[in-house]
Amino acid sequence: MTPLKNDTFLRALQRQPVDHTPLWLMRQAGRYLPEYCATRARAGSFLSLCKTPSLATEVTLQPLARYDLDAAILFSDILTVPDAMGLGLYFAEGEGPKFERPLRQEWEIRDLQAPDPHDHLGYVMDAVSEIRRALDGSVPLIGFSGSPFTLSCYMVEGEGSDTYARVKTLMYSRPDLMHHILDVTTRAVIDYLNAQIEAGAQAVMVFDSWGGMLSQAAYLEFSLPYMARIMAGLTRERDGRTVPRIVFTKGGGLWLDRIADCGADAVGLDWTIEIGEARQRVGDRVALQGNMDPSILLTTPEAVATEARRILASYGHGNGHVFNLGHGISQFTPPENVAVLVETVRAESRQYHAS
Amino acid sequence: MTPLKNDTFLRALQRQPVDHTPLWLMRQAGRYLPEYCATRARAGSFLSLCKTPSLATEVTLQPLARYDLDAAILFSDILTVPDAMGLGLYFAEGEGPKFERPLRQEWEIRDLQAPDPHDHLGYVMDAVSEIRRALDGSVPLIGFSGSPFTLSCYMVEGEGSDTYARVKTLMYSRPDLMHHILDVTTRAVIDYLNAQIEAGAQAVMVFDSWGGMLSQAAYLEFSLPYMARIMAGLTRERDGRTVPRIVFTKGGGLWLDRIADCGADAVGLDWTIEIGEARQRVGDRVALQGNMDPSILLTTPEAVATEARRILASYGHGNGHVFNLGHGISQFTPPENVAVLVETVRAESRQYHAS
Repeated sequence: MTPLKNDTFLRALQRQPVDHTPLWLMRQAGRYLPEYCATRARAGSFLSLCKTPSLATEVTLQPLARYDLDAAILFSDILTVPDAMGLGLYFAEGEGPKFERPLRQEWEIRDLQAPDPHDHLGYVMDAVSEIRRALDGSVPLIGFSGSPFTLSCYMVEGEGSDTYARVKTLMYSRPDLMHHILDVTTRAVIDYLNAQIEAGAQAVMVFDSWGGMLSQAAYLEFSLPYMARIMAGLTRERDGRTVPRIVFTKGGGLWLDRIADCGADAVGLDWTIEIGEARQRVGDRVALQGNMDPSILLTTPEAVATEARRILASYGHGNGHVFNLGHGISQFTPPENVAVLVETVRAESRQYHAS
Repeated sequence: MTPLKNDTFLRALQRQPVDHTPLWLMRQAGRYLPEYCATRARAGSFLSLCKTPSLATEVTLQPLARYDLDAAILFSDILTVPDAMGLGLYFAEGEGPKFERPLRQEWEIRDLQAPDPHDHLGYVMDAVSEIRRALDGSVPLIGFSGSPFTLSCYMVEGEGSDTYARVKTLMYSRPDLMHHILDVTTRAVIDYLNAQIEAGAQAVMVFDSWGGMLSQAAYLEFSLPYMARIMAGLTRERDGRTVPRIVFTKGGGLWLDRIADCGADAVGLDWTIEIGEARQRVGDRVALQGNMDPSILLTTPEAVATEARRILASYGHGNGHVFNLGHGISQFTPPENVAVLVETVRAESRQYHAS
């Protein structure tokens, strides 16, 4: 493979010196880009976009062609793993993801198996390899997975939820069954992420999108320990280089101290926590990734630049910051505001890394 | 007026000794109760239920007839204040609240006036008086308002929002206009709550339902200072008794230390924070109200009782705890689970108040 030309992102995740604060954006390949919408239209559906490596490669690279970003992230969906477990992922028009066969009966839960990623998720590994070839060493590629808790939520609910009534009923009335789903899913995620690393992912991120709706007691029982198990089970080095790991629990700011001890190299932050205070709390345990409110990208170029500068200053001098949003970019984002963000972070962050 | 027979709630808010942990439930008069649905059907609409004092009184008292609760809360809506400002509140069938005339133009914002609560919100004061008479001193009555930030959000968006794009655009591009809306709304809320106290409310609560979607910097600029102004502007005593004040920012756990200094007697907590850790953080500055996940009421009686006991134990011995949910009760709650919660808290909490 071509040597990596820009390793700023990988270095920052390991709190090594860099000359600017690296930046990428959650959901950077997405509907706010007209070229993404065109490829998606050609693909016919979101799922076939995910499942066709050449198209997944195409959209993964689109934001990099427009913006000076420091990392690419595999274009895929967090629900590929439960889909490979046989739950039948589909997207109803205009609605979120759904499963044809959600987990409703005890025997369905007991029958759950961790899929072999090479058998059932080969299209993801093919996409990872193809993206790595297409990137040609320009920036590193991030692989990812949903967290066991977030995946289990979808598997039990069968779709997105406002109340999470089904999964909470299961958690609180049959914790043994919930832990069984989480255990199988954790093993599946470890195999899945290791296969992505094997195929070429140079960093990995675990998205715990729904952990933040738990009580602290439930989070510490049902979400964080499984992410810690994943951290312990991941391939640590590949091609002589450390593969850094990021965990991100949206709404998890209150639990930052515990999350920082789960074995990850970096912790993603949503925008509700002040990143400078977060840095004080984690000390030199982990790097921090975040944390601009994505809604600010819906406002004006001036507001975007001001907020980007504020966040850089809040983190302050020194290593260990990866700039990102606190949540995926909105489909209503004007692409020119993203350009302002990227240029501002690149230019203004150098002062915080000068020796 | 009849002397108050059960002042446990008012005493707990002031961290005075009590013999059990008082309990009430946010949205305790609501759709999970068949008798509420019957009254609402008779009223014809949610708004006419709010605007007809005899019906508002009827539904306010319904949960107290079923359960041994320690407080009643005025049945009303947080959006009565912007409605009285002339924005035209309505509820489209099957949808949330909307305004006919949301704030879109600068002149509309500049024209905004704090309404005289006696002129425009007389129906609320009539309901407060009528509920006080009907309660006949059994338990205290809580008055309430939305927070200036939460009200301003609705006033700018015109309805509920997922992205808050309009209000965030205003906040970040024209902070002067946002502060003007907040200033007028704060004056309106102070007058409104003081009128409720005058009419008979024995404690008041400010609901900051949407403050938790802000960055810390934005919360400290656009939400908390206005709640602090309200605290400073409220009538402190009525009929020789302190009128305790509660503030509640859903999703505000990260900012608890600052919220505890805003001048309130008590801070409401959602379920994401561990109440025992919250108590350590606030010390003896404020009482705490909360914080069971309302979704647990959708599960089993055993799970409800276990979680209630866990929260009581987490808060521990001593004064200053008002038991509540961390958010309004779900319409899908089985009423018998509420009975289990009320009985468990009443019986199990006594051990934490024994001398």
